[in-house]
Amino acid sequence: MIKVLVNGYGTIGKRVADAVAKQDDMQLAGIVKLKPDFKSRIAAAKGYHIFAEGSEGVAAFDAAGQRCSGTLREALEGADAVIDCTPGKTGAQNKALYASAGKSAVFQGGESAGIADVSFVAQCNYAQARGKKYVRVVSCNTTGLCRTLGAINAAFGVESANVVLVRRAADPGQVREGPINAIVPDPAKIPSHHGPDVQSVLPISITTAALKIPTTLMHVHVVFCRLKRKCSAADAINALESAPRVMLVSTADDFASTAHLIEYARDLGRSRGDLYEIPVWRESISVNGGGLAYMQAVHQECNVVPENVDAIRAMFDVCSAEESIKKTNASLGISK
Amino acid sequence: MIKVLVNGYGTIGKRVADAVAKQDDMQLAGIVKLKPDFKSRIAAAKGYHIFAEGSEGVAAFDAAGQRCSGTLREALEGADAVIDCTPGKTGAQNKALYASAGKSAVFQGGESAGIADVSFVAQCNYAQARGKKYVRVVSCNTTGLCRTLGAINAAFGVESANVVLVRRAADPGQVREGPINAIVPDPAKIPSHHGPDVQSVLPISITTAALKIPTTLMHVHVVFCRLKRKCSAADAINALESAPRVMLVSTADDFASTAHLIEYARDLGRSRGDLYEIPVWRESISVNGGGLAYMQAVHQECNVVPENVDAIRAMFDVCSAEESIKKTNASLGISK
Amino acid sequence: MIKVLVNGYGTIGKRVADAVAKQDDMQLAGIVKLKPDFKSRIAAAKGYHIFAEGSEGVAAFDAAGQRCSGTLREALEGADAVIDCTPGKTGAQNKALYASAGKSAVFQGGESAGIADVSFVAQCNYAQARGKKYVRVVSCNTTGLCRTLGAINAAFGVESANVVLVRRAADPGQVREGPINAIVPDPAKIPSHHGPDVQSVLPISITTAALKIPTTLMHVHVVFCRLKRKCSAADAINALESAPRVMLVSTADDFASTAHLIEYARDLGRSRGDLYEIPVWRESISVNGGGLAYMQAVHQECNVVPENVDAIRAMFDVCSAEESIKKTNASLGISK
Amino acid sequence: MIKVLVNGYGTIGKRVADAVAKQDDMQLAGIVKLKPDFKSRIAAAKGYHIFAEGSEGVAAFDAAGQRCSGTLREALEGADAVIDCTPGKTGAQNKALYASAGKSAVFQGGESAGIADVSFVAQCNYAQARGKKYVRVVSCNTTGLCRTLGAINAAFGVESANVVLVRRAADPGQVREGPINAIVPDPAKIPSHHGPDVQSVLPISITTAALKIPTTLMHVHVVFCRLKRKCSAADAINALESAPRVMLVSTADDFASTAHLIEYARDLGRSRGDLYEIPVWRESISVNGGGLAYMQAVHQECNVVPENVDAIRAMFDVCSAEESIKKTNASLGISK
Repeated sequence: MIKVLVNGYGTIGKRVADAVAKQDDMQLAGIVKLKPDFKSRIAAAKGYHIFAEGSEGVAAFDAAGQRCSGTLREALEGADAVIDCTPGKTGAQNKALYASAGKSAVFQGGESAGIADVSFVAQCNYAQARGKKYVRVVSCNTTGLCRTLGAINAAFGVESANVVLVRRAADPGQVREGPINAIVPDPAKIPSHHGPDVQSVLPISITTAALKIPTTLMHVHVVFCRLKRKCSAADAINALESAPRVMLVSTADDFASTAHLIEYARDLGRSRGDLYEIPVWRESISVNGGGLAYMQAVHQECNVVPENVDAIRAMFDVCSAEESIKKTNASLGISK
Repeated sequence: MIKVLVNGYGTIGKRVADAVAKQDDMQLAGIVKLKPDFKSRIAAAKGYHIFAEGSEGVAAFDAAGQRCSGTLREALEGADAVIDCTPGKTGAQNKALYASAGKSAVFQGGESAGIADVSFVAQCNYAQARGKKYVRVVSCNTTGLCRTLGAINAAFGVESANVVLVRRAADPGQVREGPINAIVPDPAKIPSHHGPDVQSVLPISITTAALKIPTTLMHVHVVFCRLKRKCSAADAINALESAPRVMLVSTADDFASTAHLIEYARDLGRSRGDLYEIPVWRESISVNGGGLAYMQAVHQECNVVPENVDAIRAMFDVCSAEESIKKTNASLGISK
Repeated sequence: MIKVLVNGYGTIGKRVADAVAKQDDMQLAGIVKLKPDFKSRIAAAKGYHIFAEGSEGVAAFDAAGQRCSGTLREALEGADAVIDCTPGKTGAQNKALYASAGKSAVFQGGESAGIADVSFVAQCNYAQARGKKYVRVVSCNTTGLCRTLGAINAAFGVESANVVLVRRAADPGQVREGPINAIVPDPAKIPSHHGPDVQSVLPISITTAALKIPTTLMHVHVVFCRLKRKCSAADAINALESAPRVMLVSTADDFASTAHLIEYARDLGRSRGDLYEIPVWRESISVNGGGLAYMQAVHQECNVVPENVDAIRAMFDVCSAEESIKKTNASLGISK
Repeated sequence: MIKVLVNGYGTIGKRVADAVAKQDDMQLAGIVKLKPDFKSRIAAAKGYHIFAEGSEGVAAFDAAGQRCSGTLREALEGADAVIDCTPGKTGAQNKALYASAGKSAVFQGGESAGIADVSFVAQCNYAQARGKKYVRVVSCNTTGLCRTLGAINAAFGVESANVVLVRRAADPGQVREGPINAIVPDPAKIPSHHGPDVQSVLPISITTAALKIPTTLMHVHVVFCRLKRKCSAADAINALESAPRVMLVSTADDFASTAHLIEYARDLGRSRGDLYEIPVWRESISVNGGGLAYMQAVHQECNVVPENVDAIRAMFDVCSAEESIKKTNASLGISK
C-alpha cells in the first residue's frame, strides 16, 4: 500500500483524493486544505484526514468546529508520496519541502516542465516515469491532445499539426472569472504555449492557438494534421477507437454539444458528473487533401485524474502501463 | 409493491424513474421514451424496460439496435400507476388514455391545476392527496415557495407575500434556448402565474414577478412577506430549519452562489449532482419594519422528484406524510 | 462658460466628457487618463486635451506617441470644477487635491455619501445642490430608483418599498469579471446597501436585495411599494409618464428584454447606444391588494451622465432645475 | 440617382437602408417590414417610406397608428433595384416577384449561390458583378475570410487554408437563441459549408470547421494557411494593411477581446457601434514552419453593409471598384 498525501483540495485535488481512496494498492494519507468550508466538511464525512498548511490554518479549522489533524509538514511524515494539486506555480515553491522530507511528488500541468524528471501522459510515456522521484502530469488540454494525437502519431506519423483550443473560461464554481459576453484571444499571439507543452510528452511538430469563451463545462479542440502515412477517415476512427481513454461520440446519439457530453456523464452516475475520457465527434473525423481533421472535447475538471493515479504506480514501479491503466479505469468506471 | 410507469424520459422523467426504482415499496414498470439516444442506452444498461409512444417509435428503437418492450398502451397494462413527465400540456392529452386504462396518474406542474384532484407538495397537503386518482405535483418554483412559505405560514401566519423569481432560462442540456446576454421579463406583466399556482396548494395572499436570465443551474427567489404574528430573524431561522427538504446555507461556509450549491451536491456524491432541498441563505433572513425577507434557490432539475414519489404513496394510501417523506428522503440521501 | 475637467476616462468618464463638450455654457478643460490606448487616441482625435495622473503617465503617453498636456495637478489649474469619474473610493483620495486647488468637485456614487455636501438626482433635489462646492451624483441603481420612486412618492406618498435589484455583473468591456453561469447574491444579506443610498436622496422607507447575474447590458429592478394615498395602475402610469428621464415601454412595441432596449437606443442613433432614460414596462405597472408593483431597467453605463451635467449647473447656480434638465436633455437627445 | 428598395428590416436590412440613404448617387425608395414596432417608428421618424409585405401587413400598421405606404408589390414599382434582406431562403421565394417586376436584385449570403449571377465581395470580384442583374453578397463570415485571404492570396498565393470559425450564437436582440453554457459544433462534421462558400468568390483550397458559442458580439476566425510564395510575418502584415476594410489591432492598444473591438466602434461614434472592417490581431500574425497563421474578428451585424452598397454600383456599372469602395467608405466613416 502506497501512502499518498494530496496537497490542495480544489477542483483537481478533491477528485484525485477520491480516486486514490478507491485504489486497492494505495492509501489516502490525508488531504491538505487551506481553510474550512463545506468541502472540508464533506471530506471529513468521508473519513479523510484533513491537514492545514500551517498552524494558522489548524486554528481556523478549530474555530469552525472542524477536525484538523495537523500541518502539511506533519502530514508528509505519514506519506510515501505527495500529489501536489495546489494552484499553478505553487508546486514549485512546495518542492523543496517535499525534497527535504524525502518524499516523491507528482505535480500538475500548471508547473513548468522543469519541475519534474518527466512530463507524463499514461498511454504515451508511462515507461519513462518508472522509478522517477518527480513526475509532472500535464495540463487538461495537453493531456487531451496527447491522448488522440499520440494514437494518430503511432498509427500514421504526424508530420505537423495545427490546433485551435476553444477554452472554457472558468470552472463552474469560479464565479469571479469572465468573460460574460466576449471572445478573448488568450493569448492574442500564435503560437500559444500549448504546442510546446504537448512536445514535452510527444515529439511532434505542432502549432496551437487559443481563445477563451464564456462557458464553464469543457474545452473543445479542432485539430488539423498532416500525416506521414496514408490514412482514411475509417483508419483514423480505428486508431482513435483503440486508444485508451478516448471515446467516439455521434450527434446521431444526441451528443450535440459539450452540455450533452456532461449530461451523459451525469446520467451514467459518474462521481460529480465527471467525463475522464476524451470524446471525439465521429462525424468530424475527416480526411481532406491529405490532411486529417477532427473535433474533440476535454472535461477540464477531471480528465487528468486517472493520470495522477497512474503516475504514482509508475514512480513506485508497481506494474506496467497496461496494468495500471486497467486498474485505474476499473476503479473510476472508464470502459477502456 | 406498486408498479409505476414513468411516461417521458427528459430532465424530470429520468430522475423520477431512478427514484421510483430505489423505493422498497414500488417497482419501476418501465419508462416511455420518444426516440433512441444515449439516454435510452443508459436506461437499458440499468435494466429498465423501455417503451416507445407508438409503433413508429418501436421501429426507431429497433433501427438503432436498442431494445424496446412495446408501446405506451402496452406499458400501461403492466402498471398500477403512471407518472406523466411529458412536456407541459401533453399530460392533458394523455389523461384520457390513462383513464381508459383505469390507471392512477401523477401529473407535473406544466399542466393546469384542473387536470387533477389536488395540487401537491408533500409537506403541505399530503393528506388531501390520500386515495386520490389524479394528483398534480406542482412546478419546481411553486414547490420551492410552498416548502418555505408553508413553514413560515404555519409558524407565523403569512398576511401577504411579494416574491421575485429570477429564473434560469434553460436546463443544462437545452442548448437552443436563450437569452445569451439579456434579462427578459417573463412575463413583463405583474403578477406572474406563480402566485396563483402557489395558491393551488397554500391559501395565502401572494404576488409574484418573474425574470428570465442566462444561467442553467438554479432559480433564485427573493421573498418579502408580512406576517400575522410577531417573528424575529431567529424565529424564522428556527421555522425554516424544522421544515423538511429545506436547508440553511451560509456564505461563511463558501455557499457564495448557485454554482457553489450545485458544487456541494456534486461533492456529496448525489446522483447527477442533484440538490433536492431548497437552500435558504442564512444571512438573508431578516426582519425589517414588520416584514420578513429571505433568498432561496431551487434546483429545477430535481426538487420535485421526492414529491412525485410521495404522491404515489399518498394516492395508494400506503402510509402517513411523515413516513413517506422519511422513506423517500432516506432513499435519495436527503437528511431531513 | 464653466471650465470642467473630467478626471477618469472609463465607462462614465468618457461619456461625461462628451456630454460636457456638448453644453453651450460649459467648456471641457480636458480629461485625465491613466495610460494611453485606443480610447485616448479617439479622445485626441476629438480635440480633447489629455492629461495623465503624474509624470510617469505623461512619459507613457510620450512613449506611445500620443500627445499629453501634463499632469492632473496642471490640469486642475485650468478648470473651474472637476468631475471625478475615477474608480470607487479613489475620489475620496482625490478630494484633498481638489480642495487644495480650490476647485469644486462632483463625485460619483462609488464614494460614500459623506464625501459631499449633498447626494444628488436632478429631478429630486437639484435645489439642495445649488451653490454647493461638493456634490455626489448617486450610483446608476440609486439614480434609477430615485427617478421613479421620487415621482411615485410625490404623487401618492411611499409608505414602504421593497425592491429586488437584478444586476448586470460587468460592463461590456470588463471581460475579466464573472459569473459566467451562476446567480450570485451580492450581498447574500438583506438589506443591501442600495436602500440606504436611496435614502441619501429620498426620505422614504425602503428595503433592497441584490443579485448579480451574467449579463452586461442593463440592471433590472422589480419594485413593490405600499402607498399612503390611493392609486390605480392608470394613476401610476400618469405619474411615471410625467417624470423626467423616465420612459414607458411595452412588449407590444417589441421591448421584450434589456437587449431590445439597447437595440432601441442603437437604432435611435444615440452615441454609443446609450439609453439615459429609465424604461418602465407598462404591462408591469399594477396595483394588487393596496400595493403598487413595476419593473424597470437601468443602463448602468450612462444613466448618470445627465445628472453630472446638471450637478455642475446647480453648483454654479446657473439656472433652475427645470432649465438645466431641459438644456441637458436637448443636448443628449432625451425627449423629456 | 438609383432608386433602391430594401426588403426586410432586421439586423442587416436596417443598416443597409441607412447606408443607401447616405449615398449621393442613390435614393432610398423605401423599406419593407413585416409588422409595426419600435423599429418602424424610428424608420418613420427618419422619413423612410415604409411598406408592408401584403395587405394584412398594411392593416397592422394602420391599427398601430403607424403610416404605411403600401405593399411590397407597390413598393417595387418605384424602385430601380431591390436589396433583399429577408431571412435566409426567403430571397429565393422573392426572386420571381422581382423578376416579374423587371427589377435588379441583390441577395444576401443566406441564399444559395445559384440564386445570382455572381457571389460578391467588393475588393475581390467587383468587376465580375458589373452589369449583372442578380448579385449575391456573401455571408458575414465568408466576406470576412475573403477580405483577408483575398489579400494574402494576391500577395503570396494560398496553397491551402484551414480555418476554425468560432461563431457568436445570436445577435444581441435574438434573446430566444442559445446556447447559454455550452460549445456546440455547428456542424459536428468537417468541413463546414463556409469553405465552399469562400470558393464561390475566391478560387482557393480551404477547409473550415465551425463552433457555436454563447456570445452575441462578433465571430472570431483562426486561420492557418500554407502559401505558394515565401512570406514573413512582416510581409503578411504589409499585405493586410494594404487591404481595404481590414484593420490591424493590437493588445498593446487594449484590443483584448471582441468586446473591446465593439467598444472601439462605440467610442468612434459609429452608427449602432458598427465595425465594418475586419480587425486582425497584429500579435497573432505569424509564420511557423512554412505556414501563416492569424486571428481575426467579424462584426456579423454590419460587415456586409458596404458590400451591399458597392454591389448596386457594380450592377448599374456606375464606376470602378476603387471609386465605389472609396465613396462607400467615406459615407460610413471607414478609413480605407
